[in-house]
Amino acid sequence: MTSIPIPNQEHYQSARARQDQLIKPTGALGKLEDIACWFAARQRRTIPDTLKPAITVFAADHGVAQRNVSAYPPAVTHAMLSSLATGQAAIAVLAREINAMYSVVDVGVAGEPYQASNVQSERIAPGTADLSTESAMTIHQAERALEIGARYASQAVAQGATLLIAGEVGIGNTTSAACLIAAITRLDAGMLVGSGTGLDAKGRAHKLDIVKQALDRAATHTASPLQILSELGGFEIAAMVGYYLQAARSGVPVLLDGYISAAAALIAQRTQPASLEWMLASHQSTELGHALALEHLQLKPLLNLNMRLGEGSGAAVAVPLIQAALRLHREMATFAEAGIPDGG
Amino acid sequence: MTSIPIPNQEHYQSARARQDQLIKPTGALGKLEDIACWFAARQRRTIPDTLKPAITVFAADHGVAQRNVSAYPPAVTHAMLSSLATGQAAIAVLAREINAMYSVVDVGVAGEPYQASNVQSERIAPGTADLSTESAMTIHQAERALEIGARYASQAVAQGATLLIAGEVGIGNTTSAACLIAAITRLDAGMLVGSGTGLDAKGRAHKLDIVKQALDRAATHTASPLQILSELGGFEIAAMVGYYLQAARSGVPVLLDGYISAAAALIAQRTQPASLEWMLASHQSTELGHALALEHLQLKPLLNLNMRLGEGSGAAVAVPLIQAALRLHREMATFAEAGIPDGG
Repeated sequence: MTSIPIPNQEHYQSARARQDQLIKPTGALGKLEDIACWFAARQRRTIPDTLKPAITVFAADHGVAQRNVSAYPPAVTHAMLSSLATGQAAIAVLAREINAMYSVVDVGVAGEPYQASNVQSERIAPGTADLSTESAMTIHQAERALEIGARYASQAVAQGATLLIAGEVGIGNTTSAACLIAAITRLDAGMLVGSGTGLDAKGRAHKLDIVKQALDRAATHTASPLQILSELGGFEIAAMVGYYLQAARSGVPVLLDGYISAAAALIAQRTQPASLEWMLASHQSTELGHALALEHLQLKPLLNLNMRLGEGSGAAVAVPLIQAALRLHREMATFAEAGIPDGG
Repeated sequence: MTSIPIPNQEHYQSARARQDQLIKPTGALGKLEDIACWFAARQRRTIPDTLKPAITVFAADHGVAQRNVSAYPPAVTHAMLSSLATGQAAIAVLAREINAMYSVVDVGVAGEPYQASNVQSERIAPGTADLSTESAMTIHQAERALEIGARYASQAVAQGATLLIAGEVGIGNTTSAACLIAAITRLDAGMLVGSGTGLDAKGRAHKLDIVKQALDRAATHTASPLQILSELGGFEIAAMVGYYLQAARSGVPVLLDGYISAAAALIAQRTQPASLEWMLASHQSTELGHALALEHLQLKPLLNLNMRLGEGSGAAVAVPLIQAALRLHREMATFAEAGIPDGG
């Protein structure tokens, strides 16, 4: 397995020293200062460059969606591909707003393959199997999804991206994510199964039953993160894992999104612990269990806007804040440059 | 007094109806949905336009700064004018980042008038008097500052601004703000006096003594918000009050910043309660008392980034998030447009 570079602590320290010399009281820019230093360590320079973000949205269907675990029918995944392609899905709108490279990858949406020049077809199967009754995918399929995700991360990096965001669309994927998070963290499923796209209390109770069935079924097949992924994952989630791992191997930071993203991050971290060093948490989703997943990753989100959409939307919304942090770090004067006595 | 227009509830409702039809589960964009509806009511259209932000930074000195209430010497206010003019102060950097109109107004900085084409000279006096021992300014001076602030708000609106941000620079101004907030809210001064630019515990205790002296001295002169302002305010804070009131009268929203901004907002609200309808809170400062001031205003901040710089910096950082919210509202497809069944 390719090794993951270690962020440079000297550049972290030199960036911190610069922050302490900028014309403001020490620490007055709060988390914006931390962000600048975090990127300095990863870009290996005291003053990091403006970020070129890339958003890759992975779409796939879930066999378990046939079990009424979502407020939406499975066909919505396919319909969403159209909105992702025409630029009218939330993440497509946000990609324009933040000037991000943007691509959509079909890794296994059910139904007729969606044809559009800006939707990449990498279909592994027309959706996973029902994870509550059988393995969601074979080990071979999981490996293929990891490879696809890694390839799109490499492609974005080759095109100059310096911040990677993975988005996802897939009706039923909070059910899969809950299973994955439970399997990795060993937290009780009841703390991890939320309303997803909008289940009521009864729907949530049913979804919890399904998750428990899946976890019981797969209980003896969770030795490795790859096995967990094949038993309980989704194609889009597995692709995100590959994407996150490849970003880390390439030494390019990823900005995590919400609940599904956290599940992928946990699998990536379990696969290669050093990948965590390349992850930044964008926002706190209202989806039950996201806070616990981030806590397990020891990541603190920048925003809390009561969002729970997925697609990469929370990550995209946080990008301008990070760009602002880097620009402040780059363009503010130091006390010496400004001829101001430093009393703070 | 010119009346303040009332936000249009019909447009709020039509915007909310649109949000419920966009291709996402109802409520999944959280606060971003609320922001879009808030601006719809104020721009009086279901789909509000992209915002054109204007940032006006008011600078002035405080007589009370001679009493060691700040970690920085009073001369720093004058030195900061230079960084505001050359574009190297935090707020100047952020103004570029968010494409805001940007102006700097000297309403009473001590020392030689700072000469620069982009610093407007509206000097009322070379700083206020020491508010702990006498009235900070005369009623006439307070009225002048209000008029100056109102004039710059009108100017920004005339130039097409649709979101106004007032920033401030003034060594000693958290002391003045603490006095104003205490006088308006009747909260205990001990809950409102923070570290400002970076006081230690001893420095903070001294600052609290000064604030209590000022509040005792002015106790019988707090009948009207104008009187409170003249007894305990600063020229830049009074200008911000005028700016906020004029924005409201013009029907243009203001985005509040941190502690100083909250003090000005409280005075504006006490002067014309309806002005509150035009205020949005950007961020939660770490300055002690800011949370209480916002609570008194019944405003909830969008961000919590541990910032405490002032200058309008927290407000500027929040602007891209608001622009993203409006763009999502404008450019996302509805379920009907996308041909997706709405199950959420």
